[in-house]
Amino acid sequence: MSPGESKTVVMKFGGTSVAGAEQIKRAARRIVAARDAGNRAVAVLSARGKTTDELVAQALEISDRPDSREMDMLLSTGERISCALCAMAIHDMGHKAISLTGSQAGIVTDSSHTKARIIDVRADRIREALDEDRIVLVAGFQGVSTESHDVTTLGRGGSDTTAVALAAALGADVCEIYTDVAGVFSADPRIVPDARKLSVASYEETLEMAASGARVLQLRSVEYARNHGVRIHCRSSFEDGPGTLVVSEEEAEQEKVEQPFVTAVTHTDDEARVTLTGIRDEPGVAGEIFTALAEAGINVDVIIQNEPVGDDELADLSFTIDRSELLTATDAIAALGGVSQGVRTDDRIGKVSIIGAGMRSHPGVAAKVFEVLGAEEINIEMISTSPIKISCVISADRVPGAVQALHEAFGLGADAVRPEDPAGAEHRPTIPS
Amino acid sequence: MSPGESKTVVMKFGGTSVAGAEQIKRAARRIVAARDAGNRAVAVLSARGKTTDELVAQALEISDRPDSREMDMLLSTGERISCALCAMAIHDMGHKAISLTGSQAGIVTDSSHTKARIIDVRADRIREALDEDRIVLVAGFQGVSTESHDVTTLGRGGSDTTAVALAAALGADVCEIYTDVAGVFSADPRIVPDARKLSVASYEETLEMAASGARVLQLRSVEYARNHGVRIHCRSSFEDGPGTLVVSEEEAEQEKVEQPFVTAVTHTDDEARVTLTGIRDEPGVAGEIFTALAEAGINVDVIIQNEPVGDDELADLSFTIDRSELLTATDAIAALGGVSQGVRTDDRIGKVSIIGAGMRSHPGVAAKVFEVLGAEEINIEMISTSPIKISCVISADRVPGAVQALHEAFGLGADAVRPEDPAGAEHRPTIPS
Repeated sequence: MSPGESKTVVMKFGGTSVAGAEQIKRAARRIVAARDAGNRAVAVLSARGKTTDELVAQALEISDRPDSREMDMLLSTGERISCALCAMAIHDMGHKAISLTGSQAGIVTDSSHTKARIIDVRADRIREALDEDRIVLVAGFQGVSTESHDVTTLGRGGSDTTAVALAAALGADVCEIYTDVAGVFSADPRIVPDARKLSVASYEETLEMAASGARVLQLRSVEYARNHGVRIHCRSSFEDGPGTLVVSEEEAEQEKVEQPFVTAVTHTDDEARVTLTGIRDEPGVAGEIFTALAEAGINVDVIIQNEPVGDDELADLSFTIDRSELLTATDAIAALGGVSQGVRTDDRIGKVSIIGAGMRSHPGVAAKVFEVLGAEEINIEMISTSPIKISCVISADRVPGAVQALHEAFGLGADAVRPEDPAGAEHRPTIPS
Repeated sequence: MSPGESKTVVMKFGGTSVAGAEQIKRAARRIVAARDAGNRAVAVLSARGKTTDELVAQALEISDRPDSREMDMLLSTGERISCALCAMAIHDMGHKAISLTGSQAGIVTDSSHTKARIIDVRADRIREALDEDRIVLVAGFQGVSTESHDVTTLGRGGSDTTAVALAAALGADVCEIYTDVAGVFSADPRIVPDARKLSVASYEETLEMAASGARVLQLRSVEYARNHGVRIHCRSSFEDGPGTLVVSEEEAEQEKVEQPFVTAVTHTDDEARVTLTGIRDEPGVAGEIFTALAEAGINVDVIIQNEPVGDDELADLSFTIDRSELLTATDAIAALGGVSQGVRTDDRIGKVSIIGAGMRSHPGVAAKVFEVLGAEEINIEMISTSPIKISCVISADRVPGAVQALHEAFGLGADAVRPEDPAGAEHRPTIPS
């Protein structure tokens, strides 16, 4: 960027941030303020409040299994309404604004209706409008398919991805994601009242958090940001002040005043566990099972297979899934016909996870997690790890207590004193025997 | 059309015909029935029930004077929702359907946002879809501007125009307009209980009816149909059986079993009269006044200028307008500064009209109209005529009685005996002295 050239800011406002006329005007004021500060301003808007839910309900009134192309035609209207209304508000503030559909904004996708992937961003029309000194409002969550020129949608939360993709295409200085929370927290503040707002988090940490229950940023948008080096600023649309910066690990390390080895505790409490008992311990059996689940559209989270203990070469296989998919899963397994001697399920399953880039250099974290949960007499049913994450599958009703205990033990609270380094603690295996 | 080639039918469903899930399914069944009868079926849908009103209300919550380009982006979503939902319903009936936006359907307009004019119909994508054996659903009321590729809308009732324009472009056998009434009636059935459903009406008659208060068909769509020779079948979406065929005068004459010289009585009761007293009777004064009104966006209906009676060359000028525009009109005249000595207004004005192609050869109709209204002691304030229409401006509260008396006197009722030919009656001037 040459000196004196103005920066480009992409701002994204979620459904609660445009829910009513007052919220839309507030978003408009923020966008105008960014423009008045000398930026080229692009804003991506979601559908208002419950609009998408209402449209889905209208579709289900018509059809049990609505056609996916038509579903996209239907759902894409919500974001357009938000953008047109916000453009009107900006006009009333004396600025020039133009609303664009996903198609007009150049969001080109594949043809996977209701879950399309962005394959190109042709932002010429946005650039032209910015050059004409306009504020550009883009309908989030949607694009146009490259082959048939049909309206497509990116799936729930897709507006985050729209914003990040536009920020990448426009070489924006930052992509600001405005929501009804003030940023990314060290734990869910509804469970941990002294949870701390993180000033910075790396893409990798944010991805692990999104994958393990944090709801602030959509996983795909963080992936896209990481792959294209887009800096995300996740902040509140209802209060001023900085939120959480999501950036590369290198920038995150420079930004962090201190280097905690654990960044956050995340959780879910809406999972279910399926255990197949007495399956043949031979190649191909697990593949057969998980292929059947994948074909039924089920996301499997944690998987454990116990070694066979007797002479009959029969093993037990457990996995967790979203609770809402339990029936579909057991149906898919039953359709395989006698792949196991028995099927046990538990639909009151949750998961608590500890995430932090610093864990790579602190091998004692797992041990401490087990100790903390053990002291709370919480039974760990399954464990899954990554270099920067430890997840424990536990009973759903023990999740709040586990989150509180771990948040406290790792000193993540706003007023907490940094805990001593646990590296000296005994390093235990992460998979229970 | 070569023998054996299937006919093309364009069907248009208004807001009440797609208001709820049940209505959408009923419309879908009608469309599928047309397809099953061997037709290539295209359906144009309006926004559901009160959707457009609700979207307008949302805009007015944001801005007193919403930007017109953004208004079009906003309002065009309603018809898309209807089309997507109807396509889902048709899929469930085992047929292939595809919904298209106005832009996808090739409705190209000028850039006059909120009141755009169709300048081209590029229906290639519709033809392709029909060739693929699909039912095509088109979002009514909207198009895309030829220069900037922005969403435009055609103004209230524009879906009728969309349907007629597509019927013309596709060479459709007929354009069926489905509404919540069974066709075009000889008078408003709410005022005249024995009003008769017309089996056929000419474009010219229908235009005069639309212009003088009948609400069944939108004026512009009938003009478009006349100019392109599109046969319209106006019928009920809630009952079977034929409605009213709107065709050329030649076809109408062949279709009519009998040749009544009066076809229908129409009325309005929401007008206002403005009288400017003591204006200079010289060239340019009337032009100045009506230019000012046109620039204020006011449609003037009937105009009368009385000859000056004294030596001062001052005349009186009266005209009627929509009651809602009265304030705007008097403001526009006041802004001209002393064009008249005085301004009188009456905001309780209505109009009753007699329409019929047969009036051309029956000069006594006007006389009979005056006699009938005279016998009812209804004062005629202004008169306006065309070759196939006589309109009388009267007090709004006398409108129902005038409609009933004229409908009765001209024998238009369902069970009425044809009246004798009034041609022998004295022919009186149609402008009162």
